[in-house]
Amino acid sequence: MEQQQFQARAIVRNIGQLVSVAQTPIDGASGPLQVLSNAAIVVDNDGAISWIGPDHEVDAMQVCTDQQPVNVVDAYGCVVTPGFVDSHTHLVFAGDRAEEFHLRRQGVGYGELLRQGRGILTTMNATRSASTEMLMDLALKRLDSLRAHGTTTVEVKTGYGLNMEAEERCLRIINDLNCSPSLPHEHIRVVPTFLGAHSVPPEYRDRRSAYVDLVVEEMLPAFAGMARFCDVYCEREAFSLEECRRILTRARELGYQLKVHADQLSPSGGSQLAAELGAVSADHLDYASDADLEAMRASGVVATLLPGCSYTLRSPYPSARRLLDHGLTVALATDFNPGTSYSENMQMMLGLAMSAMGMSLEEALNATTINGARALALQEQAGSLEIGKRCELALWSIHDYHEIGYHFGTNLIQSIMVL
Amino acid sequence: MEQQQFQARAIVRNIGQLVSVAQTPIDGASGPLQVLSNAAIVVDNDGAISWIGPDHEVDAMQVCTDQQPVNVVDAYGCVVTPGFVDSHTHLVFAGDRAEEFHLRRQGVGYGELLRQGRGILTTMNATRSASTEMLMDLALKRLDSLRAHGTTTVEVKTGYGLNMEAEERCLRIINDLNCSPSLPHEHIRVVPTFLGAHSVPPEYRDRRSAYVDLVVEEMLPAFAGMARFCDVYCEREAFSLEECRRILTRARELGYQLKVHADQLSPSGGSQLAAELGAVSADHLDYASDADLEAMRASGVVATLLPGCSYTLRSPYPSARRLLDHGLTVALATDFNPGTSYSENMQMMLGLAMSAMGMSLEEALNATTINGARALALQEQAGSLEIGKRCELALWSIHDYHEIGYHFGTNLIQSIMVL
Ligand SMILES: [Zn+2]
Ligand SMILES: [Zn+2]
Repeated sequence: MEQQQFQARAIVRNIGQLVSVAQTPIDGASGPLQVLSNAAIVVDNDGAISWIGPDHEVDAMQVCTDQQPVNVVDAYGCVVTPGFVDSHTHLVFAGDRAEEFHLRRQGVGYGELLRQGRGILTTMNATRSASTEMLMDLALKRLDSLRAHGTTTVEVKTGYGLNMEAEERCLRIINDLNCSPSLPHEHIRVVPTFLGAHSVPPEYRDRRSAYVDLVVEEMLPAFAGMARFCDVYCEREAFSLEECRRILTRARELGYQLKVHADQLSPSGGSQLAAELGAVSADHLDYASDADLEAMRASGVVATLLPGCSYTLRSPYPSARRLLDHGLTVALATDFNPGTSYSENMQMMLGLAMSAMGMSLEEALNATTINGARALALQEQAGSLEIGKRCELALWSIHDYHEIGYHFGTNLIQSIMVL
Repeated sequence: MEQQQFQARAIVRNIGQLVSVAQTPIDGASGPLQVLSNAAIVVDNDGAISWIGPDHEVDAMQVCTDQQPVNVVDAYGCVVTPGFVDSHTHLVFAGDRAEEFHLRRQGVGYGELLRQGRGILTTMNATRSASTEMLMDLALKRLDSLRAHGTTTVEVKTGYGLNMEAEERCLRIINDLNCSPSLPHEHIRVVPTFLGAHSVPPEYRDRRSAYVDLVVEEMLPAFAGMARFCDVYCEREAFSLEECRRILTRARELGYQLKVHADQLSPSGGSQLAAELGAVSADHLDYASDADLEAMRASGVVATLLPGCSYTLRSPYPSARRLLDHGLTVALATDFNPGTSYSENMQMMLGLAMSAMGMSLEEALNATTINGARALALQEQAGSLEIGKRCELALWSIHDYHEIGYHFGTNLIQSIMVL
């Protein structure tokens, strides 16, 4: 074999199974997930993957590096996949809602909780009154947990501030998470989303259109550039279809990409709106009709399912099978939030999707990696192991990826690596 | 306050919430779980709990100890519960069944798998041909994982040997797990169960009654004293009601206590048999009728539910609510095994029971601790924090036990402690 010369800052060797989930075939790999046994990955000086191939070929390489010595990581024969892309979380908040969780189990409805000033209002109050340091500290702890369970890219929404000052503060925290000094070596990619239209805050209870005005006329222009996405909660107890259309249309003009919390608790029209406005994703979709799905498919809207909500609310799980059969691109995410899905673990979501939503392992791995990246319009940078993408790996403590989903309830991730 | 003098080898202090799950009230504790805030536990020289009370009272105690200095453990304000009692596992085996798991997802039935020599036969072959060292090593790794997720007492069944030599070898391993030199400081209590009647091995395929003879006439007498329980798999594809009655009747004569895998895949009559013979527990119960439940209740048979099987097989979860409403004592267990529930985590079972089986947090905590102990006839020694019981604690990384079940998919256990 001819000697190859590589600029490299890191090489991951002795990968038992590399699961690339790439759409472009890799030499020697096979299957719908592009699985390569006994593999290695070379990472260039910019942190991008420059070579993927059989481990034994690395011996013959001449590797140059700016950083002496080159960082050689031994995967000890374990499974390596792309890190999880968790495309839907509400990570920045104070307090918890354990009390409400148990009240709901006793049959108290969410509308009743809202009338009591509970529900999202509990979290809004705790978040508004928490210090920035406290909110940052809580968010960093949660990022640690996300990372420990395999996530390397995470979207984070505002939506518990619900006024100009608190929404801006949360958005700054989300942006700061990307460059926190507490995360020097293992950057997790954080994608900020503005969700001012999460709920109508109590000071606007009797003049909700004034709150929509505030979002459209003040918040959206002020936050342009700070948030990649604008999201809305299109639901009877939150914002109407018309209000959502107005907010998203203005957001699009200002350069935001769009997301919609759609058809979760009732047929809200949210997924049709997502299709109409060219949103990147519509999320939840419990009540989406076949026509809704067809509109999403035609517009290329990613369908994001959030099994943690069904688990928590004990409502029927939406069928991933149905969405896949409609030809939709399906992503899975945690919806990490204190009200309806208090879990940082994408393996749990993958497991629930395989147990209760009709997904195969291959579909669930795609949904938690490359399709999560698609739901963030990041499919060119993240979500799979391909030449040119940043090297964002999940290193598993298993030797065959078929153990994923099968061996459940324990954390099979050894660590993530962002090289 | 008068000074109290205590013989003690350990004191656990600064317990934020002590959840005793005791039936006998504790001074100052309240609620169906007997929750005491800011508590401490004193452990005597024999490892038994000698005192439970408010932490501040410890300052006034005069503690004597054989072991100087007395071991003082700081719980840092966290939650302490009894360690989980996992009353149903098949922990000793070699190999895995990931391939079969994914074949079943593709619609291949279990009967078909058995005809192909897969299913339990895969595990039987791997177990028979594995060395004792290998089986021990695998079992110890699994115990480590059980412990890391909060379990301090575990029942372990044979049933993958299915001949005299291999069943005896597995039974010796199970007994050795209780006194392994690899487990010097954190003993996990291991309860051995003989399950020779797990499946008819292939060498007896056409003369199954000869295998039942072997179990009744040779195995049962040989293993008396080595196994606390005798269990049978009463199911169409395993052993008939009559065969099970014969095995269990003989086992009872020989001093075994009884368990039954009952009514899992069809109404097998197993739970009626458990009631008839005074079994300690009947497990699974997916197809148990109201009359079956009534018979169990009248005979004091513990009903053990195994949510991991429904999760894995994607079958409807049996309703814990229905069993509780019948007045039954309900336990939850992992059923850890390579075919239908590959999980070591009792928190996962508790979560599934709360999400899918209608259990409240209080019921699920009882089911995974004291009722697990009842399912092993160990309720006088384990499963709750009471004076005289061995001090087997789960130390949680949370400050309010209401986070259990609510915060899901991550391991909330910091460590177990057997003092
Ligand atoms: Zn959400
Ligand atoms: Zn079993």
